[in-house]
Amino acid sequence: MPELRLTYFDIHGGRGEPARLALTLAGIPFEDRRVVLSDWRDLKSEMPLGTLPVLEVDGYPLTQSNAINRYVGQLTGLYPTDLWQAALCDEILESVEDISTQIGATFRMSTDARRTQRELLVAGPIPLFLGRLGTQLRARGDRYFADDRLTMADLKVFAWVRHLRSGVLDHISSAIVESCADNLCAHQERIAAEPAIAAWYAERA
Amino acid sequence: MPELRLTYFDIHGGRGEPARLALTLAGIPFEDRRVVLSDWRDLKSEMPLGTLPVLEVDGYPLTQSNAINRYVGQLTGLYPTDLWQAALCDEILESVEDISTQIGATFRMSTDARRTQRELLVAGPIPLFLGRLGTQLRARGDRYFADDRLTMADLKVFAWVRHLRSGVLDHISSAIVESCADNLCAHQERIAAEPAIAAWYAERA
Repeated sequence: MPELRLTYFDIHGGRGEPARLALTLAGIPFEDRRVVLSDWRDLKSEMPLGTLPVLEVDGYPLTQSNAINRYVGQLTGLYPTDLWQAALCDEILESVEDISTQIGATFRMSTDARRTQRELLVAGPIPLFLGRLGTQLRARGDRYFADDRLTMADLKVFAWVRHLRSGVLDHISSAIVESCADNLCAHQERIAAEPAIAAWYAERA
Repeated sequence: MPELRLTYFDIHGGRGEPARLALTLAGIPFEDRRVVLSDWRDLKSEMPLGTLPVLEVDGYPLTQSNAINRYVGQLTGLYPTDLWQAALCDEILESVEDISTQIGATFRMSTDARRTQRELLVAGPIPLFLGRLGTQLRARGDRYFADDRLTMADLKVFAWVRHLRSGVLDHISSAIVESCADNLCAHQERIAAEPAIAAWYAERA
């Protein structure tokens, strides 16, 4: 097993969370390097693309969260080996990244522009993405997004849904998941109840 | 082989181009369904996420360009089988998608905002991404981005560099690739000279 160091912000969620959870579930040792926002300005210029997460694999800094997710997914066995199931898993990973990027862009806006843009996202794209995820989950048996078992796709959706439901995003109701696709709430709660994941968050509460 | 229909805009480039090129290189039949902009308004609501490309695989509409790229890459043999080489290929696919999304967002802005935002991208992110791609290519022997052979990563970079060098983007100089990473120009020209790719573009000039 290579030496792994995952650098990401000191938050319970976001782009770095699925890889942390996967490594934890599989019991694979890694350095969970957490960056507090006050240190980020200095550290940003040291990161290859000025972004996090970065997974160092025997010293090589692998960037881009979904490249990290697929690599970690294969190390941990949480990624389909079947070609088509892998495509379905990838589609979920990329869809959540797509809408997360649209929401993420609003953090860099002025207060007024942020409000306007979030209202636009609530009026269209967020329900569209949540609705499709809910439909995909239901079509696949309503437990997992690919391969009839827990994969990186579930962890990616879990982290996003958990964030939306936490209510920390101004102008985006914490009830939006429930109103668009309530089976995603049940999915999130089921993942949260996995013993290794429940223990992970209990230790960090 | 499944029945494949790739729906994308009628342009020589963008998010749908790497999959078209890969299927062409491998000689795998597919329906190359091209959408002209005047038809897009009506068609958009029929697409699962309101976006293109969409690859229908025996009728299932697979969305998200990099999910399509990985699936097509494996069908065509243009994707690494080695776990680490696949991670390096994925990192390139996601990096190009990342910066392309940043540029893409400017198309939806007002004229003034577009100019300001493109000047910001030219002052920082575009040179950063080009510079890192150039460094990665050089570190891997200066011919291919992963696996010492042509993969989807090369086709993704090729389509982006070809677009930048075409000079169609206002406020982004067509010389920016050459000035940031001239080995990416040589890489683009080498891919363009692959007989199947040269023939593809010659037929569509």
